[in-house]
Amino acid sequence: MTVPRPAAEQDPLKDLYTDWSQILATTPDLTTRLFRSIFDEWHQPTKEPEDVTYAEDTVGGVPGIWCRPLGADSSKVLLYTHGGGFAVGSASSHRKLAAHVAKALGVVAFVLDYRRAPEHPHPAALEDAVSAFLALTGQGIAPADITTIGDSAGGNLAVATALALRERDQPLPGSVIVFSPWLDMENAGETLATNEATDALVTVPLLEGMIAGCLGDRTSPTAPLANPLYADFIGFPRLYINAGGDESLLDNATRLAERAEAAGVDVTLSVVDGQQHVFPFNAGRTAAADNEIARIAKWYGA
Amino acid sequence: MTVPRPAAEQDPLKDLYTDWSQILATTPDLTTRLFRSIFDEWHQPTKEPEDVTYAEDTVGGVPGIWCRPLGADSSKVLLYTHGGGFAVGSASSHRKLAAHVAKALGVVAFVLDYRRAPEHPHPAALEDAVSAFLALTGQGIAPADITTIGDSAGGNLAVATALALRERDQPLPGSVIVFSPWLDMENAGETLATNEATDALVTVPLLEGMIAGCLGDRTSPTAPLANPLYADFIGFPRLYINAGGDESLLDNATRLAERAEAAGVDVTLSVVDGQQHVFPFNAGRTAAADNEIARIAKWYGA
Repeated sequence: MTVPRPAAEQDPLKDLYTDWSQILATTPDLTTRLFRSIFDEWHQPTKEPEDVTYAEDTVGGVPGIWCRPLGADSSKVLLYTHGGGFAVGSASSHRKLAAHVAKALGVVAFVLDYRRAPEHPHPAALEDAVSAFLALTGQGIAPADITTIGDSAGGNLAVATALALRERDQPLPGSVIVFSPWLDMENAGETLATNEATDALVTVPLLEGMIAGCLGDRTSPTAPLANPLYADFIGFPRLYINAGGDESLLDNATRLAERAEAAGVDVTLSVVDGQQHVFPFNAGRTAAADNEIARIAKWYGA
Repeated sequence: MTVPRPAAEQDPLKDLYTDWSQILATTPDLTTRLFRSIFDEWHQPTKEPEDVTYAEDTVGGVPGIWCRPLGADSSKVLLYTHGGGFAVGSASSHRKLAAHVAKALGVVAFVLDYRRAPEHPHPAALEDAVSAFLALTGQGIAPADITTIGDSAGGNLAVATALALRERDQPLPGSVIVFSPWLDMENAGETLATNEATDALVTVPLLEGMIAGCLGDRTSPTAPLANPLYADFIGFPRLYINAGGDESLLDNATRLAERAEAAGVDVTLSVVDGQQHVFPFNAGRTAAADNEIARIAKWYGA
């Protein structure tokens, strides 16, 4: 499915990325600490979702934030792994986005504050996501009622969590949803070049730094749990993938869709023209984001 | 009232201030843009308050976030002006703190994203707060059911809003609550020196930069609406003031209390030993913060 480019509208996410890129360009020695500060602003383009309450918790040893839309079915859980190159971003930066999605789907979300690189390289974050999944099932949530969901590097984690569970002969989530997944740890995608001019944030040097922090010399960039483009998708849950048409990582989404479809997975791919990396961050602000979340809700069966 | 120093406990706010001070010391040319990034982390020490919903709105032309505890009396409003030297901080950085206080008091809060310096010097922020107050009363909220409340520079605004309303012969708020108010635009306070070693954040150079941004050469540092230590407090609403015993701005609180009491105002002053600037930011994390908010609720009559 390809959604035609909508009429030009404000794009607060693109504005934020443009601003961040300016900071990155003028502050070449930006520390991880300050990287985390600016990426915690990722919530800013997202409107506060109304009628949602929040609570901190620890699930399977992993801290995070529950997003509980009023009237939501709390037996159905989105296990949300945030983006940020495995190094930045947080439950806080993604609280509003996760809450918008949970509200549209009529379920609750738990946004993980998984351990981040470079202090905690691969597979720390993945182990945290798996641990949280198993803890939820241990609390009586049916695996089929759990959706692993994430954006960018967190989209990688959402896919890899299901793959890791299958490796361990554990029940799988009922569905997997990924926003602009970042999977390609080799930087082999063509859209890195072809969309370089239209992507307001993601560049090869930025990705190289994040790969070094997460994988370093310890993990191969083609290990399937680090780079699910190399994974076997036989028996994988139904999968919703989106991406912005203007983003450098676009063909991470299309290659994931092809690979999963070839393995017989029920795949839905939504590429929205003119949109940036993780464009649902504009939830409550742009029709492009809101329409995308509405499509996901319909796909989910909400 | 002076509360004895509690048994030593974790102080996530002090940890954050220590971290910020390290950044400020090692990044002497930190831009206002990055200053705002790090100060938007001010929410981090605060636990997510449970059973509160949020909504963005514009009141009197001023954007902000409503914090609505479930079951709260929505006819009673805390008009919250955030701290950050008139230059940094936001409704986002103070959402959780305002929500904790609103929940304890059984009322709703509107946290203003007022115009900030240096782009918008004094009296822009004050005009925004006055405009929001008048809009609330225009919407049928009784002035006596509005509390102007704020921390640090936002405490200055909470006091000055009531003073500005009196100047305009408008009805006053029913009460005013200030956390670690920053009022002294002359940097004349003795505790700037005597508490220099124990305050983990606030220094004279930091304050000088913020005074220059907000007042510059246009506004006298003794103008009563910029520095309420020079104001006439006759007829001022009942006033709750707190401060941490370890903070450099402590005697802003004590001088405000003295001045208001001398004018016959019903003043409650709570100085909590061993605490940092705006220690209620530790709400949900430390007994010192939670006990202080409970005292405020009792004072408010919740």
